[in-house]
Amino acid sequence: TPPGPSPCVPWVLAMLESVYFLLSWVRSSLPPWGPCWGGSSTRLPAGPHPWGSSGQGMVLLHTGGQAGDPWGSPPAAWRGGRSTAVVTWDKAALWTDSRYWTQAERQLDCNWELQRTTWIKSIGLWILEAVPVGANISLDPFLFSIDTWNSYSQALHGSGRTLLPIETNLVDQVWGDQRPPPASSEIYSLPAAFTGSSWQEKVAGIRQQMEQHVRRPTAVLLSGLEETAWLFNLRGNDIPYNPVFYSYTLLTNTSISLFVDEMRLSAAARQSLRAGCPGPLCVELQEYGQARAHLRRYAQGNVTVWLGTEYTTYGLYGVIPQEKLLEDSYSPVMLAKAVKNAKEQELLRAAHVRDAVAVIQYLLWLEKMVPQGQVDEFSGAQHIDMLRQSEHNRGPSFQSISASGLNAALAHYSPSNRSSRKLSVDEMYLSDTGGQYLDGTTDITRTMHWGVPTPLQKEAYTRVLMGNIDLSRLIFPPNTAGRVVESFARRALWNVGLNYGHGTGHGIGNFLSVHEWPVGFQSNNVPLMAGMFTSIEPGYYRDGEFGIRIEDVALVVEAQTKVPFLTFEVVSLVPYDRNLIDLSLLSLEQIRYLNAYYETIRARVGPELQRQRLEEEYRWLQRNTEPFPLGSAATATATLGTLALASLLSALLAGLQA
Amino acid sequence: TPPGPSPCVPWVLAMLESVYFLLSWVRSSLPPWGPCWGGSSTRLPAGPHPWGSSGQGMVLLHTGGQAGDPWGSPPAAWRGGRSTAVVTWDKAALWTDSRYWTQAERQLDCNWELQRTTWIKSIGLWILEAVPVGANISLDPFLFSIDTWNSYSQALHGSGRTLLPIETNLVDQVWGDQRPPPASSEIYSLPAAFTGSSWQEKVAGIRQQMEQHVRRPTAVLLSGLEETAWLFNLRGNDIPYNPVFYSYTLLTNTSISLFVDEMRLSAAARQSLRAGCPGPLCVELQEYGQARAHLRRYAQGNVTVWLGTEYTTYGLYGVIPQEKLLEDSYSPVMLAKAVKNAKEQELLRAAHVRDAVAVIQYLLWLEKMVPQGQVDEFSGAQHIDMLRQSEHNRGPSFQSISASGLNAALAHYSPSNRSSRKLSVDEMYLSDTGGQYLDGTTDITRTMHWGVPTPLQKEAYTRVLMGNIDLSRLIFPPNTAGRVVESFARRALWNVGLNYGHGTGHGIGNFLSVHEWPVGFQSNNVPLMAGMFTSIEPGYYRDGEFGIRIEDVALVVEAQTKVPFLTFEVVSLVPYDRNLIDLSLLSLEQIRYLNAYYETIRARVGPELQRQRLEEEYRWLQRNTEPFPLGSAATATATLGTLALASLLSALLAGLQA
Repeated sequence: TPPGPSPCVPWVLAMLESVYFLLSWVRSSLPPWGPCWGGSSTRLPAGPHPWGSSGQGMVLLHTGGQAGDPWGSPPAAWRGGRSTAVVTWDKAALWTDSRYWTQAERQLDCNWELQRTTWIKSIGLWILEAVPVGANISLDPFLFSIDTWNSYSQALHGSGRTLLPIETNLVDQVWGDQRPPPASSEIYSLPAAFTGSSWQEKVAGIRQQMEQHVRRPTAVLLSGLEETAWLFNLRGNDIPYNPVFYSYTLLTNTSISLFVDEMRLSAAARQSLRAGCPGPLCVELQEYGQARAHLRRYAQGNVTVWLGTEYTTYGLYGVIPQEKLLEDSYSPVMLAKAVKNAKEQELLRAAHVRDAVAVIQYLLWLEKMVPQGQVDEFSGAQHIDMLRQSEHNRGPSFQSISASGLNAALAHYSPSNRSSRKLSVDEMYLSDTGGQYLDGTTDITRTMHWGVPTPLQKEAYTRVLMGNIDLSRLIFPPNTAGRVVESFARRALWNVGLNYGHGTGHGIGNFLSVHEWPVGFQSNNVPLMAGMFTSIEPGYYRDGEFGIRIEDVALVVEAQTKVPFLTFEVVSLVPYDRNLIDLSLLSLEQIRYLNAYYETIRARVGPELQRQRLEEEYRWLQRNTEPFPLGSAATATATLGTLALASLLSALLAGLQA
Repeated sequence: TPPGPSPCVPWVLAMLESVYFLLSWVRSSLPPWGPCWGGSSTRLPAGPHPWGSSGQGMVLLHTGGQAGDPWGSPPAAWRGGRSTAVVTWDKAALWTDSRYWTQAERQLDCNWELQRTTWIKSIGLWILEAVPVGANISLDPFLFSIDTWNSYSQALHGSGRTLLPIETNLVDQVWGDQRPPPASSEIYSLPAAFTGSSWQEKVAGIRQQMEQHVRRPTAVLLSGLEETAWLFNLRGNDIPYNPVFYSYTLLTNTSISLFVDEMRLSAAARQSLRAGCPGPLCVELQEYGQARAHLRRYAQGNVTVWLGTEYTTYGLYGVIPQEKLLEDSYSPVMLAKAVKNAKEQELLRAAHVRDAVAVIQYLLWLEKMVPQGQVDEFSGAQHIDMLRQSEHNRGPSFQSISASGLNAALAHYSPSNRSSRKLSVDEMYLSDTGGQYLDGTTDITRTMHWGVPTPLQKEAYTRVLMGNIDLSRLIFPPNTAGRVVESFARRALWNVGLNYGHGTGHGIGNFLSVHEWPVGFQSNNVPLMAGMFTSIEPGYYRDGEFGIRIEDVALVVEAQTKVPFLTFEVVSLVPYDRNLIDLSLLSLEQIRYLNAYYETIRARVGPELQRQRLEEEYRWLQRNTEPFPLGSAATATATLGTLALASLLSALLAGLQA
């Protein structure tokens, strides 16, 4: 799946997390003003408004959840956002990215204006226009991270408008008793076979970092749902596609507090967490709603709380005195989770072999079914989701993107049952899908054409592939940030004036989030280290015509240089569409790389296909991983010397034979 | 000249400006404690110390000037820093970058510890170790920019140590009457032939930006010396190598205040500035020392002051109430200056033709003199400085770097009369020099070998050249930040595990600074736009053996793509050392690029050499710009097919001839 906005604009603070989001709450949960601000029948919550009585205030709403997400108190941990709404007394606007524009246009009535960007700076400028000096802007501090809060603060800095946290979530008030119940499904322990180390080892590692830090923090606060899930080897089902659960953790040097609905823990999970009680490895289970109060009490002592500002809610941050804070962009747990150990790497590799089998089955099925006109985007998505339902699978890792023809130009398009385009041999088709397996999360995009592509389609596809190859085979020094190398994925496109508007890759988890921060190629990602997994996914989109994306997941590994430089090992194992590759554009090195990659696919996926007795798929794989001839490379054919030699030679040979 | 530390480490705040810096003030101007903290004979300024009486405070000193620089009040505008000193009651440490390590080791006695980094984070960590909680750290706020101040603040955030501005500069107190007098040379107007537009046009442009800004600022405050010099088309001699002068500017929507020693202005300059008096284009000349008081008074009104936080001193910032500030990283003047208009571009191009003549004369002279053993680093530097003393020249643009053999491994080494290595046909030689011309500032590095280079030297040189070429010929979209493309200058080195530890380029002025922010490839540079000039200067350094750098200045221009993408036009016009190029490593595209560049050199420098009747140099240029044969390219020779064809062909030919 493509990450957010392009990193080329320096002040973009890309805040990516999951790909789910439901806009409909905006209609269903906000007061039906109307008609279109002309009338006076507002149904705003009664009583004194936290934004003051001047009538000039506003409330700023931050979204990022889905139907059934508990929007209020006890609040969800901040999980990144895809959309922001601002409501004033006489205006309302929604900011969201391209994947939701069509949906927003359909679902927003004339009370709302749609803003086609998500940049905080542009939201700030809108607010400066919409409200006069002296007004307050109110936010629910549990729906904004510290960094996001600070970005708004920065955008309004010195303008005479004030950001105010409000404890009462206004959307909750509007929900009233219509609000869906909180999540209640079981929270369970991952079997040891699927974890890289025990939760006790992970806790010990974090505590060691605390001891070695010059500031000697006494506690680490975890607000990100992935952080707690990873630390305790626990999983849940609270968020579609992401096996996490509502929780907070306060890990101190002597105790461990896990804030969660205890009743939802499986017996085995509870036993695992309580095995070390009493003692420093005893997990004290506390009520989810008590996190803030507990933290406030803890912060009264002689303590230093270490936290990551990208993933901690401003609401928790606010109860810790400044001098007792140790702030980094990411908590030590986020960073530890990002570097997979040898076992976690093997688990992720194994998941990708199984995932490749499903995708290869899908590609073969499409080859047979599309010419018969029997597949549409929606049934295609259903089919690949079904094919993944094998060993260890726990469903897709995000809503499958299945886009034919012009629909693929919308980078995040997902079909619905009602609007679904038929796949055809006359159009390109883009499939961006992934699976959650107990051993790993996958994410892969392939673009295909079963008929005769146009020259532009073929050239664009080939250049996207060249970008994928150039970044995948790059050798780079340790401590290199992704953002300084991601242009290698763009150069082949740039050369002819083409580009794409999203990021080039994102981290990925072991049965966790499909977008796992802080790994990737964006400006707020950390430097690449051996053991990190990231997607590599350049693309090209032509409005109203077609869309191309080629995405693989790659592991950062040591390169074969004398000094310990790094490079990538691609762990996605599915060949590219030969029908769309113009070999004459590729360099010799690019063709050699492709052939080596295809050998790896054969060696790793071939045996698994045979084990599953998928003979037709096995033959398909052999056909589609045939080595490409080196003689077709761009530089060879372009070499005048070579061409001259060749024709001279054939003339000579003809002469000899004559 | 190479910019500062590598941009690969994400939190490096590179603060680059000029290359001059004198360490000796540390010895000469600080109290002679001693011996080595054992004794009690400290000569710290008497009286109540601003850092408190606890005996645990410290003072933080920021350097960046040179001998004769007025270190205290009225303070110099902030001009970036190369070095920082911290003095506590019982410790003293100096942080500086690699070019000053040797000098520092020689000149610092055992009272001082030398820290081989300039990262504020490491200074912060040292402070946290050296002083207990509760202590104050005092700084002269006129020697730190807002951003630098905030970085220190961030580094000490929540640690219980407090940053305190002190009005009294302690180094000044130690200087006493030994302090050199302030600058007194003439400040003059640039002739219209050498300016891109009149100062009135520039002022009108900035005022237009003020009007169009959503925050409607009423004034722009200029603290950077280049900003005022550029805005008014004035130049001075206060800083060696940089034709600027001590000054501040407050440009409001109705008035213009220039804070400068009025007596130093030439009659023509004064006349030009006062021509529009009274009126909105009248420049009011005010005392340099009154800037702060004036600004404080102005800030009491209903005003908004627009400033850039990278170049404004914290001392001025502090007198403006928060709600009256409009802060950007760079002032609108810095950004306007960065984009050269058509006339400024032509001026810079012309300066580079003249500069190429001097460098070509130098290279020819070296070819003849070095084998005779008659040149050392120092006499070489003197010779190139002398050769530049032609039309419009106003001296070198920085202290010439002239480094032979292992000395070139120190990226910023400059020879002195006392320690100067003899140039030899057995060693590589690196020359990094530049000139100040009335029409432009130049900066160029060439590396040479007049004998037989080792295979490693040749490969490393060729890979540095490949990096220079790959970045120079890159095509990229508008709004691309330099930091996301600078890796193209490194890839050829990275491929074999090599790299360099400095940035890849920096902006450059029209008869202004040789390092002109905010253009370049570092993390705090602004996106590249057509009309910007930047150096492109990859290198490779092998400790104790040799150093390579290949530096050109390039103009950002529109590319020949259908959409308005950008690329570079190299305006430095001196060929590379053919003796060091291994053609078999270059791709066909790289050789084609080189040949086209050499054609440009011939077309632009050849006529100028002829005009100056430099016949020998003209012949040297022709020899050194001969097109390279395409058949030698890496990809051609590496193609097995080609090699096989070639040997088969020769066998056949032999057979035919037999």
